[in-house]
Amino acid sequence: MPEAAQHHGTAPTDEELRALDAHWRAANYLAAGQIYLMSNPLLTEPLKPEHIKPRLLGHWGTSPGLNLVHTHLNRVIKERGIDALCVWGPGHGGPSVLANSWLEGSYSETYPDVTRDARGMERLFRQFSFPGGVPSHVAPEVPGSIHEGGELGYSLAHAYGAAFDHPNLLVACVIGDGEAETGPLAASWHSNKFLDPVHDGAVLPILHLNGYKIANPTVLSRLPEPELDELLRGYGHEPITVAGDDPVQVHRALAQAFDEALDRIALLQRTAREEDVTQRPHWPMIVLRTPKGWTGPAEVDGVPVEGTWRAHQVPLAGVRENPQHLRQLEAWLRSYRPEELFDTDGRPCAEVLACVPDGARRLGATPYANGGLLVRELPIASLDDFAVPVDKPGATLHEPTRVLGGLLEQIMKDTTARRDFRLVGPDETASNRLDAVFGASGKAWQAEVLPVDEHLDRHGRVMEILSEHLCQGWLEGYLLTGRHGLFSCYEAFVHIVDSMVNQHIKWLKTSRELNWRAPVASLNYLLTSHVWRQDHNGFSHQDPGFVDHVLNKSPQVVRVYLPPDANTLLSVADHALRSRDYVNVIVAGKQPCFDWLSMDQARVHCARGAGIWEWAGTENGSEPDVVLACAGDVPTQEVLAAAQLLRRHLPQLAVRVVNVVDMTRLLPQEEHPHGMTDFEYNGLFTADKPVIFAYHGYPWLVHRLAYRRHGHGNLHVRGYRESGTTTTPFDMVVRNDLDRYRLVMDVIDRVPGLAVRAAGVRQQMVDVRARHHAWIREHGTDLPEVADWSWTS
Amino acid sequence: MPEAAQHHGTAPTDEELRALDAHWRAANYLAAGQIYLMSNPLLTEPLKPEHIKPRLLGHWGTSPGLNLVHTHLNRVIKERGIDALCVWGPGHGGPSVLANSWLEGSYSETYPDVTRDARGMERLFRQFSFPGGVPSHVAPEVPGSIHEGGELGYSLAHAYGAAFDHPNLLVACVIGDGEAETGPLAASWHSNKFLDPVHDGAVLPILHLNGYKIANPTVLSRLPEPELDELLRGYGHEPITVAGDDPVQVHRALAQAFDEALDRIALLQRTAREEDVTQRPHWPMIVLRTPKGWTGPAEVDGVPVEGTWRAHQVPLAGVRENPQHLRQLEAWLRSYRPEELFDTDGRPCAEVLACVPDGARRLGATPYANGGLLVRELPIASLDDFAVPVDKPGATLHEPTRVLGGLLEQIMKDTTARRDFRLVGPDETASNRLDAVFGASGKAWQAEVLPVDEHLDRHGRVMEILSEHLCQGWLEGYLLTGRHGLFSCYEAFVHIVDSMVNQHIKWLKTSRELNWRAPVASLNYLLTSHVWRQDHNGFSHQDPGFVDHVLNKSPQVVRVYLPPDANTLLSVADHALRSRDYVNVIVAGKQPCFDWLSMDQARVHCARGAGIWEWAGTENGSEPDVVLACAGDVPTQEVLAAAQLLRRHLPQLAVRVVNVVDMTRLLPQEEHPHGMTDFEYNGLFTADKPVIFAYHGYPWLVHRLAYRRHGHGNLHVRGYRESGTTTTPFDMVVRNDLDRYRLVMDVIDRVPGLAVRAAGVRQQMVDVRARHHAWIREHGTDLPEVADWSWTS
Repeated sequence: MPEAAQHHGTAPTDEELRALDAHWRAANYLAAGQIYLMSNPLLTEPLKPEHIKPRLLGHWGTSPGLNLVHTHLNRVIKERGIDALCVWGPGHGGPSVLANSWLEGSYSETYPDVTRDARGMERLFRQFSFPGGVPSHVAPEVPGSIHEGGELGYSLAHAYGAAFDHPNLLVACVIGDGEAETGPLAASWHSNKFLDPVHDGAVLPILHLNGYKIANPTVLSRLPEPELDELLRGYGHEPITVAGDDPVQVHRALAQAFDEALDRIALLQRTAREEDVTQRPHWPMIVLRTPKGWTGPAEVDGVPVEGTWRAHQVPLAGVRENPQHLRQLEAWLRSYRPEELFDTDGRPCAEVLACVPDGARRLGATPYANGGLLVRELPIASLDDFAVPVDKPGATLHEPTRVLGGLLEQIMKDTTARRDFRLVGPDETASNRLDAVFGASGKAWQAEVLPVDEHLDRHGRVMEILSEHLCQGWLEGYLLTGRHGLFSCYEAFVHIVDSMVNQHIKWLKTSRELNWRAPVASLNYLLTSHVWRQDHNGFSHQDPGFVDHVLNKSPQVVRVYLPPDANTLLSVADHALRSRDYVNVIVAGKQPCFDWLSMDQARVHCARGAGIWEWAGTENGSEPDVVLACAGDVPTQEVLAAAQLLRRHLPQLAVRVVNVVDMTRLLPQEEHPHGMTDFEYNGLFTADKPVIFAYHGYPWLVHRLAYRRHGHGNLHVRGYRESGTTTTPFDMVVRNDLDRYRLVMDVIDRVPGLAVRAAGVRQQMVDVRARHHAWIREHGTDLPEVADWSWTS
Repeated sequence: MPEAAQHHGTAPTDEELRALDAHWRAANYLAAGQIYLMSNPLLTEPLKPEHIKPRLLGHWGTSPGLNLVHTHLNRVIKERGIDALCVWGPGHGGPSVLANSWLEGSYSETYPDVTRDARGMERLFRQFSFPGGVPSHVAPEVPGSIHEGGELGYSLAHAYGAAFDHPNLLVACVIGDGEAETGPLAASWHSNKFLDPVHDGAVLPILHLNGYKIANPTVLSRLPEPELDELLRGYGHEPITVAGDDPVQVHRALAQAFDEALDRIALLQRTAREEDVTQRPHWPMIVLRTPKGWTGPAEVDGVPVEGTWRAHQVPLAGVRENPQHLRQLEAWLRSYRPEELFDTDGRPCAEVLACVPDGARRLGATPYANGGLLVRELPIASLDDFAVPVDKPGATLHEPTRVLGGLLEQIMKDTTARRDFRLVGPDETASNRLDAVFGASGKAWQAEVLPVDEHLDRHGRVMEILSEHLCQGWLEGYLLTGRHGLFSCYEAFVHIVDSMVNQHIKWLKTSRELNWRAPVASLNYLLTSHVWRQDHNGFSHQDPGFVDHVLNKSPQVVRVYLPPDANTLLSVADHALRSRDYVNVIVAGKQPCFDWLSMDQARVHCARGAGIWEWAGTENGSEPDVVLACAGDVPTQEVLAAAQLLRRHLPQLAVRVVNVVDMTRLLPQEEHPHGMTDFEYNGLFTADKPVIFAYHGYPWLVHRLAYRRHGHGNLHVRGYRESGTTTTPFDMVVRNDLDRYRLVMDVIDRVPGLAVRAAGVRQQMVDVRARHHAWIREHGTDLPEVADWSWTS
């Protein structure tokens, strides 16, 4: 039980208020200093142009508000002895969070060369937004952060993700009124219907209305108070409003607001945990209305700046050239009375540090924001317990995701007490045939439950909401605070989170370069209900391009797998779930699919990432005449059917079948850690024979990966070409020229000398495609010989 | 002024209610019929397995609710004589909208082979979700639609886009309670702060709470009534609730709700238009709470279906094999009493059609849903009025987007009366230096205005909200209903709408194949604040991959332009704004950029899409030794600087400089309408000389486009490789090996025989890069020789 539950806040004394103000002024001074100063950090001499940075970059406008929240969070954390994390939605306000970390000492502990004294203060200032220094946002480099905040919209979802299954954690979340206009943020408010007051921690949203974005007022700040109040109550919160521009009054009101909010959170947690109250709580939140760029220059060059959008970035832009601006900057900086805040060595004085909590309770030192310190090995049972038996290839059918569901159910069971694994998806867990997991955990749900409902569970760890943004944001927050998870999604609609995954990959890439950030569990996607099997939904649900999107990103981080059957899916999922600091994309089918490999064969094949399936080819030890390559479940089936046709019709042809599971194997070794050497590549694909490659997605991706290979000129790729509609599975591959008959034609067209010799076979292929077209128009189903096909037939 | 404003609704008589119910039953019958029947459409004989489709596909659950709304919309449209459009958010309910279109006759007018009789009804049934037939969703094929609804989240934004600048139009919008959980939809509610009651039409949101998604209850349906009411009032609406499962009672209540809503809309419009009331209206909306799959099977195989998630798709799945299911289906279909609804020839009887409006007022016949019928040529003034004078290349600097701003201002002025052009962007119009437009139109804003605000305008046509989703959704709705627009966006964050643009491209691709859909204005992106100039924001703001994303899509639709300077940007924008049915992506800088081409030269160069810049090279009529190619403003500058270095240091080397504006020119002619022939390609790039290509984005994109070219093996591409942070512009290109010195080294490394001859020059390049690294660490700025560089220097 959190200690907060046993504590009631007491109003700060005047002395305490003075100390809070001192901390706030110190943070404001340090934030402004980072934007402007290269030297003379304590203003021990009059400010001169040469003290000013040559390039003035940074965001002042949001910083005083963030500093205010940080100061008051310090107070309640220290007073109540609670574990807390803060998600800084206005992540542009890097100077603020850096300033606070430096003040509390966590910065110097993380970066010993930036000491907590005058010399370190100068480094802190100089490095900010300086080439080779630190970025201007709350980036991975910033201690205590799990959220970049450059791309706005995800703070509240991250906060909920951090709070899930951390019952003793308070996650404060500052939401800028700009960010609040985004879709993902607007949807995130309803996350409170998924927060379990028993097993999860608390989220305290702090909506900061400073009134302006880059160049416009914000929508929420211009709502009449009663309308805003209705909105926030409609979101399920009890808002506590603090507004003003008089520091003393605001300090007093904000301290009271935090006390009220935390008292209420403690009460709600206690009633849920001890008194078994099951009604969904209406959690408190704080609305903080203070001026943008508060305490900065009121006017510059005759126009208002403080309290307007003009305070967004650098309020005084011409400081080096304009003596008036320089004087104004000096007056501004001196208005914080730095001589009262720092001793002559530049160390923060005792009053400034009075509110700062100790040790790992400091926001810049909490291990919750460095989740790799907390993460444990995920218990993954032996795959043999879930594998499907395969005596010979292609003799049986299974739904691969359903088989995976068995493994996930076991993981869910084995984490019942630990509660460090969650499965997220936009209302698709059952549709994606992972419903075995409901045997181990229901679906998180705090709202009303009716008798007809199934699998809803106040304590569930399966998360379903019809928002890919929330699934992604929750999972990111969950992983970055030291847990594990899997996101199962319709393949086409994972593009909804393209931009979020960009940011997460960038976060991981940078984190990997920081020795103090411990590796976190990978973000794992299971993309299913894929492009080839959208029989119900048609064209709008057909897009295999997420793989292309992800493969543009840092090769240190991204991995892409296309397991061709159930056992290979198990092997790949096992690998992904054990890995750290990656984004793993697994594309797999949910429809019945032939079992090609036994579990042991699958392990070997997936470890190699690509391999020759000797049993499917006809090469008999010699060099092949042609290579049939495939990646993905449907292309694999078509390639095997084509190989069977070739074996029957052209038995003298030496055909090699290669299956690729790990797409990055196709890249050169220099470009990706999984990339093959040319020697390995040629060993699989040959250097000079025709390669007909049936790929799951857009065909040019394979060229983009393999263009440097010697044999690239002989590589002919078939894939999805945006030719889709509501139709049968086989008609889909025919429409996109990925079908077995077309692949046989491709072989005949490309193997030298075969065009004449196999003209009759080619004509048979043309004929059967024509028969397909006629049949499907008449019957609406696939040709019997296709519908009943199997490798062993 | 709309006639609605002069009309008060009168409650329907019992006879009218019976007729409404007849229409609803007919639509329900036709919706269910489409999912199940291949023949025997009127049930003139007992239902047999052979009447049933072999594959049962479709979404029943949402259909009765959509049919109910359509029926009642018919009533008010006819009674009030208004122009209306409906956006069907639950677009999965294709059977419903198809049924209504067939009933009102618009379907047979659009598709004459599907007649409004028994024979046509059989075709209507058979074609649905049948290979070669029509898709299962409200797709472009469906008359009266502007919204697919397969990917949920965008209905309300589309509705607002359709209503902007259509003062006499009522746009109804059915929002499913599943869709309401998505981020884009959650943000869309605040669109009402941007709807001008004077110049815009009305949006009537109809939140349909049928309680369930695919497999879960919905969040909004499980809020206590008062909480939901607060939420919707907080969104700025006055909700009118209709709930029930007794058809008679629901018909009566819904008719009254529509009357109340439309009376109130008429009042609000009249007070704004005639009495100059400027207070933001609180628009009405309808909350409709009816069972999912209403009137379908109550139970199947002993479990409840009607009113549960089990009604989502096909409630009776085993009809062909299971006689009990077949009997249940027959009872279900006969429960609508088809013999009362259709005459013996299958034509809808008079009572069914009593509510249907006439001619173009019918929802399936409104020209507003076929915007190409309404679109007018955009008035675009002569580019010469805005072009920058260029006597010689590289002698002057301009900010390209600022120059474009002049043209946009003029377009804005020239559409003042017509009001058919809008500029949208997420709070970035000024940041992207397009602020000249404020000379012609302010920013749309209906909320509170303070004295300090600038350019806010109740009647403005510049749209700014911090939501890329809303910018995109509004613009799509605006374009599809016959107007013009431009979306200006930070390059990195346009990925936020990756999935939306997918759907729009799919919509346009399909629309182009339908001869009855008239071409609409293209969706034009101006991507600026691009990857190379994120000095403030660093790594999170660096992503040039939208081009890659778009180029995966249908080549009939997508176009990508990278104008290298101000005049080429004008030329490209002019072309894009005049075009139809495309998605045009223009990537251009906002920072000062050298002017390379005069307006006349720019026109010629952009028309070609790629060309040799003779003045920049040194080939003198002979075959070049090397080609330096570039695409994008920053790569062009680096290539020209490299060409200058080569001219100085290796004057004997024959260097050709090629600039590419239109990226699709690199594709083979067979792959894209803009693709070059091999003859053209070789004429520019040669077939066998080294080509060093400096590209704006991810380098492998150029390989993906050009891999089939003969000279591909000699193509060496430099571009962005995810190496970014907060730093100087030149440091960014150095970090990614795109800088002039590296390009010179690339030339030396790749031109045969040059390695030895030019070893000294190469070392100079290595040295200056080393000097750069030292200088930037020390000064935080770029080397003077780089900062002061110009082509003419």
